[in-house]
Amino acid sequence: MRSAISTYRLALVGFGSVGRGFAEILSLHHQRFVDRYGADVRIVAACTRRWCVYEPNGVDAATLLRAAATNTVGELPGACAWSADQMIASADADVLVEASPTDMTTGEPATTHIREAIARGMHVITANKGPIALHFAELRRLAEERGVMLGFEATVMSGTPALRLGWSNLAGCEIQEVRGIVNGTTNFILTRMERGMDYASALAEAQRLGYAEADPTGDVEGHDAAGKAAILANVLMDARLTPADVEREGITGITRDMVAAAAAAGERWKLIARVWRDGPTVRAAVHPMRLMVEHPLAGVDGATNALMISTDLLGNVTIIGPGAGGVATGFAILSDLLALHRVRG
Amino acid sequence: MRSAISTYRLALVGFGSVGRGFAEILSLHHQRFVDRYGADVRIVAACTRRWCVYEPNGVDAATLLRAAATNTVGELPGACAWSADQMIASADADVLVEASPTDMTTGEPATTHIREAIARGMHVITANKGPIALHFAELRRLAEERGVMLGFEATVMSGTPALRLGWSNLAGCEIQEVRGIVNGTTNFILTRMERGMDYASALAEAQRLGYAEADPTGDVEGHDAAGKAAILANVLMDARLTPADVEREGITGITRDMVAAAAAAGERWKLIARVWRDGPTVRAAVHPMRLMVEHPLAGVDGATNALMISTDLLGNVTIIGPGAGGVATGFAILSDLLALHRVRG
Repeated sequence: MRSAISTYRLALVGFGSVGRGFAEILSLHHQRFVDRYGADVRIVAACTRRWCVYEPNGVDAATLLRAAATNTVGELPGACAWSADQMIASADADVLVEASPTDMTTGEPATTHIREAIARGMHVITANKGPIALHFAELRRLAEERGVMLGFEATVMSGTPALRLGWSNLAGCEIQEVRGIVNGTTNFILTRMERGMDYASALAEAQRLGYAEADPTGDVEGHDAAGKAAILANVLMDARLTPADVEREGITGITRDMVAAAAAAGERWKLIARVWRDGPTVRAAVHPMRLMVEHPLAGVDGATNALMISTDLLGNVTIIGPGAGGVATGFAILSDLLALHRVRG
Repeated sequence: MRSAISTYRLALVGFGSVGRGFAEILSLHHQRFVDRYGADVRIVAACTRRWCVYEPNGVDAATLLRAAATNTVGELPGACAWSADQMIASADADVLVEASPTDMTTGEPATTHIREAIARGMHVITANKGPIALHFAELRRLAEERGVMLGFEATVMSGTPALRLGWSNLAGCEIQEVRGIVNGTTNFILTRMERGMDYASALAEAQRLGYAEADPTGDVEGHDAAGKAAILANVLMDARLTPADVEREGITGITRDMVAAAAAAGERWKLIARVWRDGPTVRAAVHPMRLMVEHPLAGVDGATNALMISTDLLGNVTIIGPGAGGVATGFAILSDLLALHRVRG
């Protein structure tokens, strides 16, 4: 029913799991987005710390994926020596996709990339959690002033539209509290412990399956969940929290006996990120909690994530979906882009 | 951050539970929508089969609620003898809110109201399921041709943004299957039967609590769920089904013994509306099904509703929330209006 096609020229910073997942979606389904929505989505530039490529007409996504996998991006037409900053300054692109590794303490270099792109009038979609956990209010203001979009759906629950559910679909409601399982690694470990494993064995299995890193601290001590709690507070409750403001307790103190005792009482341990209003202020915390098995979050197993949003007009609304994965997080980038397209296409 | 205020002038057809719930939201929170979103939402006209009122500057929502409750709308300033058709033709309004009683066989008179309003260039928000279950493709085309919005979030799961999740937030994905608990009455009865009641006693309790009507056929025989299955097929999978195309089986054949047998096997009976692709066609069915207790839909109790959407890019995404209630359904109308405001405000 649409006749005009809008072209989106994307510059990617970072080409890890998320960037590759997004490129995979484009390599398989580019034509779907043209045909259904009139959106011609092209990667015109991509930079990592090891390589950069720029093709004003668009880099073929499948070619880029193959070259990245074989460490031969330098041999592609358009390979260049730009840094990410140079790419943002020089590439003819209208959307920055910031998917470089997250630094939850400084938010850099992603935050600088985003500020630069906004200043140049580019829309920004970030999969990087740091800038939203640390600098959301500033970045939102900059984007509004410049009249560009700031997309961040990827930063919590991967492509599951949990943030958009809160800030867009539930607009009109007062959000009073948000509780969620936002870290798949710890949820996987706790689920395994319910089947009788001790903590160390469950962690080792998570590491073997690639769910946990060699140094699991960021997950098991609750740092990742605390960063996401700050994002939830900032995006859904207009707070100005940073990860350091979030009360935090991980799952390393949970023993097999504690898990068994909870089960005997009809309860389950879950690592819950919680954000709530306390008078005029917004507070956030990450703690292991015992939930009755009937609780909507109690049944969320393994690497699945979930968010329950409590509102004044609608009561509780819960969304459950994948919390990680390259294609699932790549979809978050696509969904921000299609949201931009609906408004501006 | 917004300076301009957009005014929305609404004409309501029907003032039952949904219309009253919406008016209640406006009576309590009108200023919230002005302050936060720059949306000044006013009811300028409202008609039922018994009364009509038209105030070009807006009827005070609290006044209207009181007058409707005391059968004194005829004494309000602006009371008039218009029919709904006359109101649509004559009132200076830019949004029709169609909330008259649903007729799932003909979709009338709501469909005629909607066609008329679109022809006059009004946006339309319908809480009435009939037009979307029976005539969605036509009405969507008419609205697109006329450049107006057709909102229908209220027709499935009340204000829980289940339809918007599918057609908007998950845009970009191919939706392969949708399964849901979309009728709160039957879910309440089945939940009660799990606690040992027989069907007749559980139905009687649902009737006593106002969850089931005196003639419960529409709910317990699956007609309401079949209408919603047709809506899901039409809205989320671009089908052209009517409720009559939906395979249908209600819960009247479920006995206490069957419920107990399921429980003994770690399963629960749920009335599931299911829509799926079968080659090039879309099929829909409503059947009682036994779900393992681990299934995300199995834990959905009482009058709560849920929808699980299966996609190619994101796997399964489930949303759980209220499925009925005046304020919850009134919120659906508000959410359609705020979505319109985001795009056109």
